[in-house]
Amino acid sequence: MLESAEIGHQIDKKVYAREEVRLREALLNAQFELSDKKRGPILVIISGVESGGRGELANQLTTWMDPRHIRVHAFGPRSPEEAARPPAWRYWQALPPTGKIGIFMNAWYREALDDRLAGNIDDAELNVHLQEVRREERTLYDEGVVLLKFWIHLSRDAQKKRIHALESDPKTRWRITAADKRALKLYSKSHAIWEHVLRESSTGTAPWYVVEGTDERYRNLTVGKILLDSLQAALASPARHAPAVKAAAPAPSVIDNVKLIRDLDLSKKLTVKQFELGIARCQHKLARLTHHKSFADHALMLVFEGADAAGKGGAIRRISTALDARQYTIVPIAAPTDEERVHPYLWRFWRHIPPRGRITIFDRSWYGRVLVERVERFCAVTDWTRAYDEINQFEEQLAKAGVIVVKFWLQISKEEQLRRFRERESTAFKRFKITPDDWRNRRKRADYERAVCDMVDRSSTEIAPWTLVEAEDKRYARVKVLKTIVNRIDEALG
Amino acid sequence: MLESAEIGHQIDKKVYAREEVRLREALLNAQFELSDKKRGPILVIISGVESGGRGELANQLTTWMDPRHIRVHAFGPRSPEEAARPPAWRYWQALPPTGKIGIFMNAWYREALDDRLAGNIDDAELNVHLQEVRREERTLYDEGVVLLKFWIHLSRDAQKKRIHALESDPKTRWRITAADKRALKLYSKSHAIWEHVLRESSTGTAPWYVVEGTDERYRNLTVGKILLDSLQAALASPARHAPAVKAAAPAPSVIDNVKLIRDLDLSKKLTVKQFELGIARCQHKLARLTHHKSFADHALMLVFEGADAAGKGGAIRRISTALDARQYTIVPIAAPTDEERVHPYLWRFWRHIPPRGRITIFDRSWYGRVLVERVERFCAVTDWTRAYDEINQFEEQLAKAGVIVVKFWLQISKEEQLRRFRERESTAFKRFKITPDDWRNRRKRADYERAVCDMVDRSSTEIAPWTLVEAEDKRYARVKVLKTIVNRIDEALG
Repeated sequence: MLESAEIGHQIDKKVYAREEVRLREALLNAQFELSDKKRGPILVIISGVESGGRGELANQLTTWMDPRHIRVHAFGPRSPEEAARPPAWRYWQALPPTGKIGIFMNAWYREALDDRLAGNIDDAELNVHLQEVRREERTLYDEGVVLLKFWIHLSRDAQKKRIHALESDPKTRWRITAADKRALKLYSKSHAIWEHVLRESSTGTAPWYVVEGTDERYRNLTVGKILLDSLQAALASPARHAPAVKAAAPAPSVIDNVKLIRDLDLSKKLTVKQFELGIARCQHKLARLTHHKSFADHALMLVFEGADAAGKGGAIRRISTALDARQYTIVPIAAPTDEERVHPYLWRFWRHIPPRGRITIFDRSWYGRVLVERVERFCAVTDWTRAYDEINQFEEQLAKAGVIVVKFWLQISKEEQLRRFRERESTAFKRFKITPDDWRNRRKRADYERAVCDMVDRSSTEIAPWTLVEAEDKRYARVKVLKTIVNRIDEALG
Repeated sequence: MLESAEIGHQIDKKVYAREEVRLREALLNAQFELSDKKRGPILVIISGVESGGRGELANQLTTWMDPRHIRVHAFGPRSPEEAARPPAWRYWQALPPTGKIGIFMNAWYREALDDRLAGNIDDAELNVHLQEVRREERTLYDEGVVLLKFWIHLSRDAQKKRIHALESDPKTRWRITAADKRALKLYSKSHAIWEHVLRESSTGTAPWYVVEGTDERYRNLTVGKILLDSLQAALASPARHAPAVKAAAPAPSVIDNVKLIRDLDLSKKLTVKQFELGIARCQHKLARLTHHKSFADHALMLVFEGADAAGKGGAIRRISTALDARQYTIVPIAAPTDEERVHPYLWRFWRHIPPRGRITIFDRSWYGRVLVERVERFCAVTDWTRAYDEINQFEEQLAKAGVIVVKFWLQISKEEQLRRFRERESTAFKRFKITPDDWRNRRKRADYERAVCDMVDRSSTEIAPWTLVEAEDKRYARVKVLKTIVNRIDEALG
């Protein structure tokens, strides 16, 4: 993949001058249209060999275009903030919104390359990582992000010459660091790894463009033209990508399916005494576990889903009471804000990933995609069908980073729900809990039941299993929720 | 101020049980109404002596209320992210939006108290700090934030007893740290400082409530009731505070005023050659300065204001070209997002404060408050008149933290503006730059001129002066802007 970028491409000054003017005007126009039509975003990844001129390239792109709508992110060593969360967190934070262009220097490739070169990981581990990268990039594509990956390459000789040239000019000497010199020494060893990484991570929806960096005019013009083509293609296509695959097979048949939650034994109950004893015991354990020194290596994410009036709020309160208020955050999920709307679906949840030692409680969650958005048709069938896989990958990343993910579905009968609705309407300080939406959702109960069963079937994983909670009796439900959390933390802390 | 919180207040169990039920229901109702009517936000500061039960109190409040709409922030030692920005940055980041309640543990009082106690600062320095706190709190009040400050107090004996009690119970022993014991030793010395701080920072709009913490029932109920009263008061008052002071005197008379920008010599020009030489020289210097090792102790914020078509974008490009794209961010200021709308005015600018070593370029800025918002009457007269002072304080905080603030007003004549508008309309790739708003603003030129003069008069400070730029000739303007920036950085780096 690299050979054709080691042959000394170049462009002469006159041609460049002529082409640059045209390119620049076209880029500016396309950039404006992108913002105006709210297409994209465009995410440009610039990676490659040391001293290949990646930084200059980023500068050139921002100079050609309107720098107010393009943003460059260099990802250096992880800050403590970043290190306390899953590796992908910082990339999600930096993701450009619709209509904008983001440039990620090296992005998620830098560490994999360095680690393999240093021998910290072997080929198998590298491949696992690259598979994850492929999935992540696919998700971005499906969410409408146009991904452009540039590998700026130099042959060994060219790299040597370039370092020498930069070093001998006092104006550029500061650019040459120990890293550049080390890179030169490791060139041959690195070459094999580069080829491997590029091959494994070039996909139909996010191919690598290998561009020779020896001649900066060639490098800049080549990248600029590819970027322009991609911008124009993004503008010519409909607002959302046409799904590259057909919608996945529809959810499994209804018959087995609805049994899962219909078969729950909703008659389970606790007496007041059992409840009080159970709650006190669990709360005590929870407090102890979340103050345990091993908890500092973990984080906890609790997910509450359930029909309206199933008792999510009440269950959450029994948990938060046992926690130190400085340690947890409750995130109620309602309609997205406008900043959330212009980012991929999962962005709004990535925002709230707790750092190690902390707890986030989600009152409704990313499962909205396969529940309310599916049933109410807020998203296309292809969107919610691919969501299962994306969610599983999301939760895998969390688990890998030590986050304990505990998910609850609270189930109540139709009759009990009605009773609670009526009660809410007649109790002054509960009235705010009932809205016309609740009555409307109730009429779609069958659709929701099916969606719930599919959700549990497809996203109850070993690392993040669903717990179905018989919630007809609030006392029973609350104790079951607390017990489950305590057990999961206990397990995780070993 | 502390005596009446050292006399052993307490409440018996029965009274507490009865009162708690009522209080809780009322708090829940008020909290819901706050969110529903979009009043507030309520910011509760809990500070006080060690072992006074500040953490338990925060927990009790979140337990009584709907924990989804109340968030507790403990501010520990500064993270590197926080340490690289002005001290107030982290508090702005954590500020609750309208309709919500935030609890700040110790907030901006902790460090001042600790520093004075440790002798790192003297009384004079402490007083300066407290004056700043008063101004900040006043700004919050004026922006609609309801500020409640609780000092949880213990007499020396009570503190001793409490530490002893917690230590002897295995369930609570972990709560006692070395800090608690040290606090006890320093009690008398601390007492004087506490009194001083409380006295100096108790204001009409943000008084301290000193609450004895010996008996937790007394403590919780007292704080709960004060919180309830404040919630109810916030609900009963109109959506915005009535301004506590009358609007400041109107801006100075027009006659001197408009001269300031009318007197600029708009005939200043550069030839192409002068321009190219000047730009190249400045860009080179700028690149060198921003890579200078002393620049890592500073940050740079550039502010561009000017009439439509005055050439802000072009000037910004001549700057960004000289910078490393990984080092700067351009923030174009347009209508606020909905997340920005539910926070105080300056919040959206605090979000973009660069950390040390970095650069943020604002294409329009916080001066919108005293320009477009004033002229178009988007805000009340009292809002924009108090804004000058708030902005000055904001910029002082920046300067203190090493941020170099450079502000430009780009001035063009009415005729030149018209010529540029026409040119934009007729040039394909400039068409996006002209909108009906531009034509409309043009008709308000006199109002804008007056607002600009007031702005410069009232916010051109030693630490952050305005530079008026004769922008009739783009070349002249661009070189002047670059020169000014270079000089300011040069000065700052010494």
